[in-house]
Amino acid sequence: MSDEHSRADLVAKLLHPKSIAIVGASNDPVKLSGRPVDYLRRFGYTGRILPINRGRETVQGLPAYPSLADAPAEIDLAMVMLPAAEVAECLRDCQRHGVSVAIVAAAGFAEASAKGAELQAELQAVVRETGVRVLGPNCLGAISVAERAVPTFTSALDEDMRLRSGPIGFVSQSGAFGSFIFSAAQRTGIGFTHYLNTGNEADLSVAEVLDALLDTADTKVLLAYLEGVTDGRRLLEVARRANELDKPILAVKVGSSAAGARAAQSHTASLAGADTVFDGAARQFGIVRLSGMDPLLDAARLFAAGRRARGNRLSTLSLSGGAGVLMADAAAAHGIDVPVWDEQWQQAMAEVIPPFGSARNPIDLTATLISDPPMLRRSLRIAVTHPDTDLIAVLLGNADRGAEQLVDAIEEAYQATDRPFVVVWTGGNGRPAELLAERGIPCYSDPGRAAAALGALVEYGRRPPVSTPCRPTDVDSAAARAVVASARAAGQRVLDEYTASQLIAAYGIPRAEYRVVAGPDAAVAAAAELAGPVAVKLRSSKVPHKSDIGGVRLGLTTAAEVWAAAEQVLRAEPSGELLVQRMAEPGTELILGIQRDPAFGPVVLAGFGGVLAELLADSKVAVAPIDARTATDLLCSLRGAALFDGVRGGQPVDLDAVADALARLSWLAHDLADDLVSLDVNPLVVGAGGAIAVDCLAELG
Amino acid sequence: MSDEHSRADLVAKLLHPKSIAIVGASNDPVKLSGRPVDYLRRFGYTGRILPINRGRETVQGLPAYPSLADAPAEIDLAMVMLPAAEVAECLRDCQRHGVSVAIVAAAGFAEASAKGAELQAELQAVVRETGVRVLGPNCLGAISVAERAVPTFTSALDEDMRLRSGPIGFVSQSGAFGSFIFSAAQRTGIGFTHYLNTGNEADLSVAEVLDALLDTADTKVLLAYLEGVTDGRRLLEVARRANELDKPILAVKVGSSAAGARAAQSHTASLAGADTVFDGAARQFGIVRLSGMDPLLDAARLFAAGRRARGNRLSTLSLSGGAGVLMADAAAAHGIDVPVWDEQWQQAMAEVIPPFGSARNPIDLTATLISDPPMLRRSLRIAVTHPDTDLIAVLLGNADRGAEQLVDAIEEAYQATDRPFVVVWTGGNGRPAELLAERGIPCYSDPGRAAAALGALVEYGRRPPVSTPCRPTDVDSAAARAVVASARAAGQRVLDEYTASQLIAAYGIPRAEYRVVAGPDAAVAAAAELAGPVAVKLRSSKVPHKSDIGGVRLGLTTAAEVWAAAEQVLRAEPSGELLVQRMAEPGTELILGIQRDPAFGPVVLAGFGGVLAELLADSKVAVAPIDARTATDLLCSLRGAALFDGVRGGQPVDLDAVADALARLSWLAHDLADDLVSLDVNPLVVGAGGAIAVDCLAELG
Repeated sequence: MSDEHSRADLVAKLLHPKSIAIVGASNDPVKLSGRPVDYLRRFGYTGRILPINRGRETVQGLPAYPSLADAPAEIDLAMVMLPAAEVAECLRDCQRHGVSVAIVAAAGFAEASAKGAELQAELQAVVRETGVRVLGPNCLGAISVAERAVPTFTSALDEDMRLRSGPIGFVSQSGAFGSFIFSAAQRTGIGFTHYLNTGNEADLSVAEVLDALLDTADTKVLLAYLEGVTDGRRLLEVARRANELDKPILAVKVGSSAAGARAAQSHTASLAGADTVFDGAARQFGIVRLSGMDPLLDAARLFAAGRRARGNRLSTLSLSGGAGVLMADAAAAHGIDVPVWDEQWQQAMAEVIPPFGSARNPIDLTATLISDPPMLRRSLRIAVTHPDTDLIAVLLGNADRGAEQLVDAIEEAYQATDRPFVVVWTGGNGRPAELLAERGIPCYSDPGRAAAALGALVEYGRRPPVSTPCRPTDVDSAAARAVVASARAAGQRVLDEYTASQLIAAYGIPRAEYRVVAGPDAAVAAAAELAGPVAVKLRSSKVPHKSDIGGVRLGLTTAAEVWAAAEQVLRAEPSGELLVQRMAEPGTELILGIQRDPAFGPVVLAGFGGVLAELLADSKVAVAPIDARTATDLLCSLRGAALFDGVRGGQPVDLDAVADALARLSWLAHDLADDLVSLDVNPLVVGAGGAIAVDCLAELG
Repeated sequence: MSDEHSRADLVAKLLHPKSIAIVGASNDPVKLSGRPVDYLRRFGYTGRILPINRGRETVQGLPAYPSLADAPAEIDLAMVMLPAAEVAECLRDCQRHGVSVAIVAAAGFAEASAKGAELQAELQAVVRETGVRVLGPNCLGAISVAERAVPTFTSALDEDMRLRSGPIGFVSQSGAFGSFIFSAAQRTGIGFTHYLNTGNEADLSVAEVLDALLDTADTKVLLAYLEGVTDGRRLLEVARRANELDKPILAVKVGSSAAGARAAQSHTASLAGADTVFDGAARQFGIVRLSGMDPLLDAARLFAAGRRARGNRLSTLSLSGGAGVLMADAAAAHGIDVPVWDEQWQQAMAEVIPPFGSARNPIDLTATLISDPPMLRRSLRIAVTHPDTDLIAVLLGNADRGAEQLVDAIEEAYQATDRPFVVVWTGGNGRPAELLAERGIPCYSDPGRAAAALGALVEYGRRPPVSTPCRPTDVDSAAARAVVASARAAGQRVLDEYTASQLIAAYGIPRAEYRVVAGPDAAVAAAAELAGPVAVKLRSSKVPHKSDIGGVRLGLTTAAEVWAAAEQVLRAEPSGELLVQRMAEPGTELILGIQRDPAFGPVVLAGFGGVLAELLADSKVAVAPIDARTATDLLCSLRGAALFDGVRGGQPVDLDAVADALARLSWLAHDLADDLVSLDVNPLVVGAGGAIAVDCLAELG
């Protein structure tokens, strides 16, 4: 089945099922296996509910059938509530009776034990064999709000609640915590199209479910709660499509800390890629990463309103001067400006607010507002027409009594502009927030949280286009492959500087000029040829980490120095050769590298070298291949990027040369993905006129 | 009146008034001037309400009196609801009739206009003259929960609400926003002893009110919302006393951003000290600074439970493995460890939880918990006895149906330990959080927010003791004063290196050896005397910023170099002299400085110099004087402090020498507080064996 066809089937059967069979449905609505039927009935599923129960003629008052074969209608979706050991057979049954999508609830698979892992492998074999697509196992199910299709036993629906619809599709790897988030969102006025839990992802991954959600018209914003991404490349392709459709993906990915990563790994039984890799990939592909539940839902609330940020200039109008100050601080912390309005607009604003207010921005309407709600209307009319405002925040609090009038004024202004617009209503009885939510206006109780959400929206607005990089014409992949083949033939797994530098040379990355020679006399002759200070390094495939044994001597200027250094270096490893290398001009040191990530495949990384490597403790990652523009973005996002501009009166460095080297490295990473486990250029020295690789090491896998 | 006596009077009259006169009380309970009487009656004030109204015999059903003189009882507190112009006379009236404390509500003082500023000056004159203490003007009043004393017109009490008591005293400079916070706190289960708004602080400042609150037995935690600290030293003395009493101060101080500072200044009409100064002072005096409202209230909820953190090792028990992972990430982000339990304790835990759970920490109890609440009891019994646990978090969600049983199990465990203990209950109908709040157990809806609160508690637990530094015996303040006097006599406001270095020398800070000479020949002779490479610098009181005109030549080794450099330097300013200085051994460059802060007086600051100054963009501040221990803490809190340990195999630097220099500088700052506006040692060069000041500049005020 083509990707598109397969997606269409998922959209139709998993996300908009017209009939759901509950296999193993219990008559007891409190039991886990009884809940799906209870929920489907209680929330008013618009399709047909077909309980499958070998021993009963009715389940919770509905006619039940002994098997799928006996069901009197076509079945779009099977919710399998059987024990783990019975699942594989049930899926075969599904295929036999034309059911192409199933949700498998049972735990006891790979997350539980070795025996469970076998069951999961069997399940996967059945999936391959039958083509039945499976959500789960070990999953809580799915919720489609429009159809009230709730094949799930999540505790989020345990109590009566109103299922709130909205433009958000949510996929969670975590079952319980995903349900907590869903419940918390629903109760604070955030509506959804769909919520799905992917569980063990024996078949359908978060990426595939997101991909299907992209094709549902009502879903405008995607939320993902991730514990361990396994098919990173697939996720990025979905992100690319989401970008084209301007359907933002907001993601929480846990495991950023050592303890968190450890727990995530034991919890999901999957090896997640490094957190910095996810971070880089997300930035590169326009996924907005949030740090936790509140930030995720706060951003979702704003993104759901469907507006995009054209810039980062915020105008705030507040009932309390203090709230305006706090908002300005919080805005700055999230990359948002609160610029002073120009004189002419200040005057216009000053005419409608009290003289002891402030029209500068933050605009202080003063507490007079409470007794004069029309003032809010008048001042907002000005704010929504102010051309240098990209974002609007109205800050209120308490004032429950006059709330309706204030909300009306806000709604009028909200409708009069297409700019992102938030309300912060602090304290009081919470009713104003409900009124605003009903009218689709994002409302927060804390200025800091509103600012964080606005910051995420601005970040999304500024995301670079997701590029499709072009291969440089002058890279010689055949030469690089030949280097690898000959190293493999020689039994080398770790490639020394000499060999590794041939790889980068084949991809057009400049390296310091060198000669390989046999002894001290030849070293002296080579140094004379190279002219200027040289380094003498041990060249031995036996000792790739040459520094560890004193195999590197730098900054040698006289023949005597070169001779002595060569002699000493060879003493450490008499069977080795010598690499005599012209010293690079002093410059800024960077470390560029290639790594193979278990989730995202070949990636490149960059950071500052030398003392700064430790001090700044920062490197950034991109998924290979990349073009020079993405490389430049990455480099400029480094802590310490100020160095590129030349600090303390120094000359700016040749950033283009570094970006070019990084992009070329990314093609090497991409082309040799099956061979290279890692490669480090350390340092790459960059000055005002170019960058040069000075040392290099690689590892084959 | 002594401080202590004055405080006692405030505690009795402002915080625990037995009778309150409302001067200018309106009969209309909706009007601002009618609200205090309405609130006092509605919330059930336990004391006597005495409405003062020239024109009415009753106010809102209570007997009213034409003037304070006519009131038939002693008046503890006057709530003045008169217009600004009538306030001064009313305060004189207060004194005449034995009323020693008044709250002045009216706006229209310094915050409003020049005319208002005059009225405020008059009010301050009356305060000095009469001794009547004033809260305000431009303030919303006060709330004392125990007595239901609510002399205020805050909108927080606008709707009926239950006034919730608890151990927190809260003072806000912002009226409206303070009331929003109070309302938000009350509605989420946080109880108070007192809430006061200080408004324009014409008399009583936040510091003084906090000082009084420290003397109320029921207040265990102090909250402060600050826009512009004016009497910083007083605040720090209160913080010192709070530390001695172990009553933590949690503070939000706005104005950290440029836009925020600008808005705060125009809003409060007061010049706040620099934000980094507040930050340093807070750290030094054990004030826990929070970044906004939610973080403040989240921390307050935890601190109010009265427990202290002995360490930062968190054990989490969760219903959802995913929640445990997220909590571990959030904990790490706030300096909290989630260490794996040792084998023996893991085994004990494994015995009471399902086999597919995890006993490692984060401890995953699995969703089985919902159907087996006693499992929570059993696992918590183990967690509260685990000796290597400093902090406990229980993570639950939804599960409203079985909530009571779970809450009972949590309460049993909570009572069985004295360690900080939080619950995170995400999603669901919110009832469990209420049950927990009623039992005094801190509960959050988001793991990230719980982690931030725990982080604040750990920070408080680790605060260094507030020290009383001892003056070094070998500082020569007379010599320093003589240098200043002679500079003043010469009309110098900016002191050049030669003069400024005499100040630091008088305080025992090592400086590079030098000679002052007249011309190139003398410079060569001086260089010979000093031996080794030298610097030649222009010495001219006319050109203190000598670098700007090329007046500094470094690293001169030969006589010819020295001669040429001297000649060139003098060409720039022929009337100058030359300072020939021995070059310091290469080392790590720091910048130490003195500044005079409008709120906190003399402070010292330290940061890294050279390229790192720009790259790290970080300096830390302490209020002078400090001892070497505080100086060391400050230096170790610098971004880049890893440099002190010696990076990349380098030797550790002599941190003690830097700390000693900084402490000595702080005594210079303290002793010459009236003279010195600023002083910079830039750089102080530190190596493995000492620190040496290489250049220095000072400014007198």
